Amino acid sequence: MADPIALITNIRADYEARYLDALASAMPNESILLFRNLDSEQRSRVRIAIVANPNPADVAALPKLVWIQSLWAGVEQLVSSLPAKGPPIVRMIDPEMSRTMAEAVLAWTYYLQRDMPTYVRQQRDQVWNQLAYKKPSSLTVGILGLGALGAAAAARLVNAGFNVVGWSRSEKSVSNVRTFSGNNGLTGMLRISDIVVCLVPLTSQTRGLLNAERFAAMKPGAALVNFARGPVVVSDDLLTALDNGHLTHAVLDVFDTEPLPPDSRFWHHPSVSVLPHISAPTDFDTAATVIAGNIAQFRLSGMVPGSVDTARGY
Amino acid sequence: MADPIALITNIRADYEARYLDALASAMPNESILLFRNLDSEQRSRVRIAIVANPNPADVAALPKLVWIQSLWAGVEQLVSSLPAKGPPIVRMIDPEMSRTMAEAVLAWTYYLQRDMPTYVRQQRDQVWNQLAYKKPSSLTVGILGLGALGAAAAARLVNAGFNVVGWSRSEKSVSNVRTFSGNNGLTGMLRISDIVVCLVPLTSQTRGLLNAERFAAMKPGAALVNFARGPVVVSDDLLTALDNGHLTHAVLDVFDTEPLPPDSRFWHHPSVSVLPHISAPTDFDTAATVIAGNIAQFRLSGMVPGSVDTARGY
Repeated sequence: MADPIALITNIRADYEARYLDALASAMPNESILLFRNLDSEQRSRVRIAIVANPNPADVAALPKLVWIQSLWAGVEQLVSSLPAKGPPIVRMIDPEMSRTMAEAVLAWTYYLQRDMPTYVRQQRDQVWNQLAYKKPSSLTVGILGLGALGAAAAARLVNAGFNVVGWSRSEKSVSNVRTFSGNNGLTGMLRISDIVVCLVPLTSQTRGLLNAERFAAMKPGAALVNFARGPVVVSDDLLTALDNGHLTHAVLDVFDTEPLPPDSRFWHHPSVSVLPHISAPTDFDTAATVIAGNIAQFRLSGMVPGSVDTARGY
Repeated sequence: MADPIALITNIRADYEARYLDALASAMPNESILLFRNLDSEQRSRVRIAIVANPNPADVAALPKLVWIQSLWAGVEQLVSSLPAKGPPIVRMIDPEMSRTMAEAVLAWTYYLQRDMPTYVRQQRDQVWNQLAYKKPSSLTVGILGLGALGAAAAARLVNAGFNVVGWSRSEKSVSNVRTFSGNNGLTGMLRISDIVVCLVPLTSQTRGLLNAERFAAMKPGAALVNFARGPVVVSDDLLTALDNGHLTHAVLDVFDTEPLPPDSRFWHHPSVSVLPHISAPTDFDTAATVIAGNIAQFRLSGMVPGSVDTARGY
């Protein structure tokens, strides 16, 4: 039997159990054990750890660790909590998650285009009022971040007839999408977008990216969707832009602190839709299949899968 | 100059003005006049009337009328208010309306699949709770009515990954859709659908189609979307099915009386989303283009475009 694989998590117990089941099914020849169940002899042999929000001390307790497989696509917490010179971190890149996220982007773009928040309010107030219909071809959706998730979301929106523009740190080309890059490009993209969808990873460069200056650059009446990470948006600046009516609505799935604290103004803001981080939940089975592929590759060739650039942060 | 064309409407004045503008732009060589502005000599020469909710007496005041062009796709009111042996009625069949309706069906299918009504309620109650994600491939959407609108909606849902089944009065074939027909077929389709979308025309045969018996045939926990006409659904039976929890939600865009009266239970029912008849608004410009095509054809060949079978009702 090869070295055991350690599963290290700090997540809901039912989620942990489902990951363990899915991983065991996807890799029947591997021995996958919860970190807390490993004895010291087993710990000394672990070469691969699969992690979700792990305690850094647990990771440090594995002296032979060669690489770390994240169960999540977002690795900002891992990168900042683990030593930069430690074993390489492999992000979850699951095509099923790209599909799910692209679907969420289209669903909540329709939510805004079709004025669903206003119709909910009108129903509450017993108001019968037909709002002017906005054709997708009359709206421009700007995607912040053109990685796997952003590219999939852009394709889905193009398919639905929206004008799509996109921004990324470095120049990228996406079919049927006008792309922008760099700081000037960001302003250029924000100026022309009716709906801005945030899908950038959280890094030192994207923390606070959407601040008062960026909101001021947005079109009057535009809306924001944040499906990335809370700290990419400066919450107080967003609230100001919503309060003064420069932005009409924000759909927020991610927050600086999650669950969103009871005293957050977002809960009761009439122009905010609060979602409990559900845009693209990990699919236990497809995630396990992706990880099984990475591990099979490593067993065969000794090659660690493509890993995170810790300087860049993703 | 040929005979004048009469525009006869009983709709919001701003809508009437926009139709008149769009029609005049689409047919610069035709003389299109509001019925109320026609003198008796002009009335005696009118061969074509374009109508939206017309007063039947106005239509009867045009002795030389050859055919009636409806501005709307739904003609149940026209058919029942005008004499059966009068001039043929031509329905609005606008490809842009099929697109808009298909988009509405996808948008509100996402609304249900993504649990948007529950997340709105959770936000109001400050509840942070992640509901289990439902893949489109795990849900079956049943379309009632496979005409131009139903077929377009089915294609859009298939494109988004949903399982799609469909029902029509007479047997029809739609690619990638399992189809049902007749009374037994209706029960068969209702039994397997997680979301039922109603797109049938209102006729003597579809009035009251969705009644207690049909709701009982639906899957426990299923949801209903009515984008057709209010009287296709027996409102009290629907309320009972929602009250006892057999159905989880209804998205209603159409009602027996519109605007929805203030005393309707639908306004405040926690499992109902009330929309003010906005799923697929007529596009003034594309509707005018379609009508211009029909009229040009008539001027050229004397041929009346395909018209409504008044016995069948659509």
